[in-house]
Amino acid sequence: MKYSFRNDYSELAHPKILELMIKSANEQNIGYGLDVHSDRAKSLIEKHIKRKVDIHFLAGGTSANKILISHVLKSYEAVISVESGHINVHEAGAVEANGHKILYYPGKNGKLLPEEIVDSVLIHCDEHMVIPKLVYISNATELGTVYTKEEIIAIKEVCEKYNLYLFIDGARIAQALVSHENDLDLNDFAELSDAFYIGGTKNGAMIGEALILVNPLFKKNFRNSIKQNGGMLAKGYLVAMQYECLFTDNLFYVLAKHAVDAGMLLRDELQKEGVEFLIDSNINMQFIIINNEWLKKLNKLYDFEVWKRIDNNKSAIRLVTSWATDIKAIHEFMKDFREIKNA
Amino acid sequence: MKYSFRNDYSELAHPKILELMIKSANEQNIGYGLDVHSDRAKSLIEKHIKRKVDIHFLAGGTSANKILISHVLKSYEAVISVESGHINVHEAGAVEANGHKILYYPGKNGKLLPEEIVDSVLIHCDEHMVIPKLVYISNATELGTVYTKEEIIAIKEVCEKYNLYLFIDGARIAQALVSHENDLDLNDFAELSDAFYIGGTKNGAMIGEALILVNPLFKKNFRNSIKQNGGMLAKGYLVAMQYECLFTDNLFYVLAKHAVDAGMLLRDELQKEGVEFLIDSNINMQFIIINNEWLKKLNKLYDFEVWKRIDNNKSAIRLVTSWATDIKAIHEFMKDFREIKNA
Amino acid sequence: MKYSFRNDYSELAHPKILELMIKSANEQNIGYGLDVHSDRAKSLIEKHIKRKVDIHFLAGGTSANKILISHVLKSYEAVISVESGHINVHEAGAVEANGHKILYYPGKNGKLLPEEIVDSVLIHCDEHMVIPKLVYISNATELGTVYTKEEIIAIKEVCEKYNLYLFIDGARIAQALVSHENDLDLNDFAELSDAFYIGGTKNGAMIGEALILVNPLFKKNFRNSIKQNGGMLAKGYLVAMQYECLFTDNLFYVLAKHAVDAGMLLRDELQKEGVEFLIDSNINMQFIIINNEWLKKLNKLYDFEVWKRIDNNKSAIRLVTSWATDIKAIHEFMKDFREIKNA
Amino acid sequence: MKYSFRNDYSELAHPKILELMIKSANEQNIGYGLDVHSDRAKSLIEKHIKRKVDIHFLAGGTSANKILISHVLKSYEAVISVESGHINVHEAGAVEANGHKILYYPGKNGKLLPEEIVDSVLIHCDEHMVIPKLVYISNATELGTVYTKEEIIAIKEVCEKYNLYLFIDGARIAQALVSHENDLDLNDFAELSDAFYIGGTKNGAMIGEALILVNPLFKKNFRNSIKQNGGMLAKGYLVAMQYECLFTDNLFYVLAKHAVDAGMLLRDELQKEGVEFLIDSNINMQFIIINNEWLKKLNKLYDFEVWKRIDNNKSAIRLVTSWATDIKAIHEFMKDFREIKNA
Repeated sequence: MKYSFRNDYSELAHPKILELMIKSANEQNIGYGLDVHSDRAKSLIEKHIKRKVDIHFLAGGTSANKILISHVLKSYEAVISVESGHINVHEAGAVEANGHKILYYPGKNGKLLPEEIVDSVLIHCDEHMVIPKLVYISNATELGTVYTKEEIIAIKEVCEKYNLYLFIDGARIAQALVSHENDLDLNDFAELSDAFYIGGTKNGAMIGEALILVNPLFKKNFRNSIKQNGGMLAKGYLVAMQYECLFTDNLFYVLAKHAVDAGMLLRDELQKEGVEFLIDSNINMQFIIINNEWLKKLNKLYDFEVWKRIDNNKSAIRLVTSWATDIKAIHEFMKDFREIKNA
Repeated sequence: MKYSFRNDYSELAHPKILELMIKSANEQNIGYGLDVHSDRAKSLIEKHIKRKVDIHFLAGGTSANKILISHVLKSYEAVISVESGHINVHEAGAVEANGHKILYYPGKNGKLLPEEIVDSVLIHCDEHMVIPKLVYISNATELGTVYTKEEIIAIKEVCEKYNLYLFIDGARIAQALVSHENDLDLNDFAELSDAFYIGGTKNGAMIGEALILVNPLFKKNFRNSIKQNGGMLAKGYLVAMQYECLFTDNLFYVLAKHAVDAGMLLRDELQKEGVEFLIDSNINMQFIIINNEWLKKLNKLYDFEVWKRIDNNKSAIRLVTSWATDIKAIHEFMKDFREIKNA
Repeated sequence: MKYSFRNDYSELAHPKILELMIKSANEQNIGYGLDVHSDRAKSLIEKHIKRKVDIHFLAGGTSANKILISHVLKSYEAVISVESGHINVHEAGAVEANGHKILYYPGKNGKLLPEEIVDSVLIHCDEHMVIPKLVYISNATELGTVYTKEEIIAIKEVCEKYNLYLFIDGARIAQALVSHENDLDLNDFAELSDAFYIGGTKNGAMIGEALILVNPLFKKNFRNSIKQNGGMLAKGYLVAMQYECLFTDNLFYVLAKHAVDAGMLLRDELQKEGVEFLIDSNINMQFIIINNEWLKKLNKLYDFEVWKRIDNNKSAIRLVTSWATDIKAIHEFMKDFREIKNA
Repeated sequence: MKYSFRNDYSELAHPKILELMIKSANEQNIGYGLDVHSDRAKSLIEKHIKRKVDIHFLAGGTSANKILISHVLKSYEAVISVESGHINVHEAGAVEANGHKILYYPGKNGKLLPEEIVDSVLIHCDEHMVIPKLVYISNATELGTVYTKEEIIAIKEVCEKYNLYLFIDGARIAQALVSHENDLDLNDFAELSDAFYIGGTKNGAMIGEALILVNPLFKKNFRNSIKQNGGMLAKGYLVAMQYECLFTDNLFYVLAKHAVDAGMLLRDELQKEGVEFLIDSNINMQFIIINNEWLKKLNKLYDFEVWKRIDNNKSAIRLVTSWATDIKAIHEFMKDFREIKNA
């Protein structure tokens, strides 16, 4: 088996999660998220947030995005997103399938710019057009960049000025939070957004995203939307157990830190080799540009994603580390990389 | 804690499933159902089916119903269902949210009647009406009844005559298969339907329904529909592991038999007490009619669902046994029941 | 050409409407319903209504129903309708295509019963089910019956008690208003409903339904919903002109009275012949039951709709009179009918 | 009243159309487009097309686009459009409301480029993304440009290579056909597209777009889609009469030619004044850039649309001529323009 740097959801779950599951195996729990594990997990998360929020545990990111967006928007209201946004590219049209247009803009380094939001609002001015109503950003972004507090405040201010909702996709919020670029904490996200989610799947959980509803308008009948979109698990306590564990003893941050530290190590080592980077990422995803010959040789030894074609000779690849990455594997990888380079 | 007869998904998962998960915890698996566990689980299921089918592992029943139906129908095509059908009552409008009308009929004992299908087709005769195109039945039904082969063949013949698809919701297909009323096997379902699913959640799995696509027309781009509906799990191998285990050493049937045997024991014991039944069910769900005083007392000791009001004094309650039901708990329950009755 | 009793929209438009159109042919008007004819037509209608309402001119009934319902409901909210309701049977699934379930009940004589609404609300009690939120009735109904004020008040009271909207499909409201059973006026409909429409197409207009939004919650961004559903005509003034004319010199009532008088004449004459009626209708639609031999012979001379099969020998047919019906044609029809009967 | 150059649908209808309507006012016609006028209008259009096509008369362009696109696509299939495309900007999200993503590209002069289509297809390569399936172009475009036969063939070839449908929005196809840039006829559009429509509303009709279905796959149950989308008029013969008239004695071309001739006159006169044009348009829409002072003064005398802001001092305005434009009004306009300019 080749060692995989393909993504951060290759391993089933952190051992502590499995432990809790084994321990709970003989319990009888109420279905559909109305169980005691859900209560406990919510309490643990709520400790990080000073506002009164509603928390829903969902199975995946597409589901979380699709349900939240269609729950809060009228069908003539649209989403503003950066072009590379997950909802815009990698969700098979899930948001549109529920009836909403995504207005997409180039952004910069994977981040949406406040002025793009303003432009969008000003252009959409009559009933022949959709009404931009919800701003969608991801943190960390699809390109591994991390928003600063200043950047999110700038977006939030535009949202408030134009009466837009701000929704933050946090599939990799853990990795963002432990990045050295970061100056936000979970409570800041609750203060600055109308809703966001805390990704579990990419940070050691077997399954799950914890959706945090901040805006009181979002809360009513939300469980109806979950059910209608096929997002309500009979054994909802399965997802809750993941968060119960992740938010005990800081496991959530410990796992993310391991992933990002591994990513930084990989970056430093690659920089030493003079490798060209597609973008400057400070989390557990590194995008490097290599020639196609090296790519082929590397790919025989390691699994990873070819991100995009650069030109006839070069491609960008994405190397992802995770909570489960063995640091030795990185050194192994670098050794092989140098060999290929020097061959 | 009160012992619960509320449903068959109160316990996390059968120990053998947890064992496999622990054993696999250090593996790196490809995401989105393209992993080796998915391959293995598919092979194990395919052994029971003589036709070439596509198998997709999904997270839940609503998701399976919603995705299959909207994948195969045009928006002006409608579903025919019995009034008590899960899609018609308990999925929060999931099928309609994806654009399709459900035409519902009274049926008999929770089963749809072939003549109701014929009527539906004949009435819907011009472009001002929807076109009935897919027949949805559940086996076992919502009321715990089980279709015979003869009954399903009669429905299938109507479907063929009028060019309709037949889709079978198998959330409790395991319990149906081991019921003494049953004269079908998994291959029969593949022969007689265009698609059906093999429920895991209610038969010992932590999560999952295995959707079997028989009709070649259904297979194209099905994964796009899964993704678009938020049904594609990053760690798809989690669901696959459930089926890998359930379809090893007949565990699937062993668990269902335990659940149904427990149901039959409960029924026999209640019959001895002269209890009135709402319907004659031969699976792991028993619906009994008791007076509200007894109900209150029983409910202090046991957890169960109040199914429906009968009159001012009486209600029907649903008692569900499962793969995890302790036979001792049934005897305990009966002892308490007799005490309440004789008080 | 056979004389047609098929429906009340066989003739293009009343001559006065054509006159206004010819007179206006050289004007330049603003598009999309922002023109002076729209203003005038709204003023004329508003004179009949004491509340502050919004009025939108739409092209057809399906469009009006679909747009209103999907504008005001969340996708998990459902419509309550009588089984024979136009939206439930004759709109090709238009409401479901926009994501909403229709909960349908048998009703009586084409009218929804208040107790059916109560039942529906009480049954739909948790997030696994849709939430009934809008009651849809038609006046006159599909079967030609007319609601009394008492009946509509009874429905309205249930709606208020359970926080439901009441929407009245008025495709044939003109015919209802002039029926001898009627004790309501246009203002009553505004007082008793959240929205209703005043049908033009079936009462002398070339095209158009005037949708009256009473509930302030319905008004916001309604034009966006019209546009998104393809219901906004570039030459909106075309529809407005119809209403400008219909609401001048009581033409609206004059035309409806002619249609209903013709219907009553037809009914009286048929009753004299001892004909069996399917239902007691006091508007311009009469449903009679005749044997299939007579039906065939009549159909060679006149055009009408075969409404439903009664048994092997008999069918119900629908005879519709209109603002344009020539009274002589009714006498001619009766003469032919008697000849067939006495042959 | 100010003379209006706002659009080409300010006047009700050409007198010949009104004549036919008056002549037909006493007829009884079958509803829903099954009448003799529809048959006649279809025959007249079919004379221009050598293939066997289906023709449906619809009320408006948004309706035509929305119905065609959602009828032929699965929900995970997407539309490729130029960014300025009518469906992308000016239909309030109608296509997305029916579940489909629009992938939009910059294009050139309002025209989509074949290489943009190729890029779109190549990028969308797995089930996490939508599948581009239908190419939407308008002719004339929103910016008044006209595709050459060579350009459309280039697009068609890409469509055939990648198994995409080509759909042409012909709201202003008449104006394109008579433009001096044009080298196509109606039959060419049938040869080169899977479907297109022949706009009536902007070329003298009171209402209507004639949708031509060329691809046999599109034809099945199309009337169900029309009905479900609220696009089926009870008095369908009203729209048919428009086309019966437009396609008699070449009225369709005569009216378009008048509109375009007027546009060319206006362009020539403005060019003489040294006015700057936003784009080179050869149809009945001229986009000129003027300073805001002139704009204000002109707007006191004439009605027109302010198309876009150029900078703090200048704006682009759109001047539209039509079949009804009085040539004297153009000379009047130029006189006033010169006065403002020379003031």
